[in-house]
Amino acid sequence: MTSGGDVTVSPGNVPVYHKNNLEVIDRRVKVAEVVLRCMICGLGILAAVLVGSDTQVREIFTIRKKAKFTDMKALVFLLIANGIAAGYSFIQSLRCVVSVIRGSLLVNKPLAWAIFSGDQVMAYVLMAAFAAAAQSSVIAEMGQPEWQWMKVCNLYEKFCTQAGEGMVIALVVSLSMITLSFISAFNLFRLYGETEAQNRGGW
Amino acid sequence: MTSGGDVTVSPGNVPVYHKNNLEVIDRRVKVAEVVLRCMICGLGILAAVLVGSDTQVREIFTIRKKAKFTDMKALVFLLIANGIAAGYSFIQSLRCVVSVIRGSLLVNKPLAWAIFSGDQVMAYVLMAAFAAAAQSSVIAEMGQPEWQWMKVCNLYEKFCTQAGEGMVIALVVSLSMITLSFISAFNLFRLYGETEAQNRGGW
Repeated sequence: MTSGGDVTVSPGNVPVYHKNNLEVIDRRVKVAEVVLRCMICGLGILAAVLVGSDTQVREIFTIRKKAKFTDMKALVFLLIANGIAAGYSFIQSLRCVVSVIRGSLLVNKPLAWAIFSGDQVMAYVLMAAFAAAAQSSVIAEMGQPEWQWMKVCNLYEKFCTQAGEGMVIALVVSLSMITLSFISAFNLFRLYGETEAQNRGGW
Repeated sequence: MTSGGDVTVSPGNVPVYHKNNLEVIDRRVKVAEVVLRCMICGLGILAAVLVGSDTQVREIFTIRKKAKFTDMKALVFLLIANGIAAGYSFIQSLRCVVSVIRGSLLVNKPLAWAIFSGDQVMAYVLMAAFAAAAQSSVIAEMGQPEWQWMKVCNLYEKFCTQAGEGMVIALVVSLSMITLSFISAFNLFRLYGETEAQNRGGW
């Protein structure tokens, strides 16, 4: 039973190099996780506020017309998804910080499964919300002349710009949550790891 | 160094029970992978054909109007995404079948990374395509009266029904690809597994 490095291995013991290496990876992954979760929390709130406060009033001849984010159901979905993501990430970052302070970096399987499931659901919901909002925005920006759906963004420029800003931030939130879902998959599935004997060579 | 089961373990050896158990999991996961990949291949083609052949001609008074899937850009995206998913899954299922026949169930890290990345990209793209198409369909079905985007589905019933069927199948394809992305994450990250000493108890 050798591990490939210049490490002394006695029968029945975990190789010292391998264990230290794992601990370094653990700590880096945990720091990345905390940073990403805090980022999602902050940016999720920002996206929700930008979308939720998006409104514009125009006077076209004597008619007063108002565009608000609730006119576009996809923006409501985007706001809700980002709000939930922010709350979820807040709770998760508290958990991360507590585990870093306590020094208990390794998680057990039920907890790892719960975190993995939560992150996966959030990642796909955020991506779906972004895609739906992007689709609505394309129609609002370019119209759908075949079906007489007219452009809206040439009427409500400020409204569309603010919605666009919210969506860019929501995209960053989605991508961060996707990265996090990789981290939680890593944290979960390596608990089902191969033994050292089956896992030689490679990166 | 004990493994928790009624297994004889000699120093420096892999526990027999643990190894056999891993092989059983390996084989089941591989079978599930082949089934899912073949399913995605078949259903992806079906979804693409249903969406791509979706067209309806209506005569409203003497005016001949035609609805086709290219009128709705999200359906074009859905068709392309499902077509690519079908092709990708075909190639991947060939790889799976070859590895089952050869009996080489374990993969190396670079290959596991490539499969993981491909599956993740496909899962998110399929989900985004479905969400965008669903958003367009909601507008087509219910209209967006605030912006004078009129309902289309009361004019083109057959067109909308067929698009709906394509979308239901595309949803099944998306969910299957998400499940597959879990499997490839499992196959990748357990290569970074903990050693047996750190991995006792739990499911």
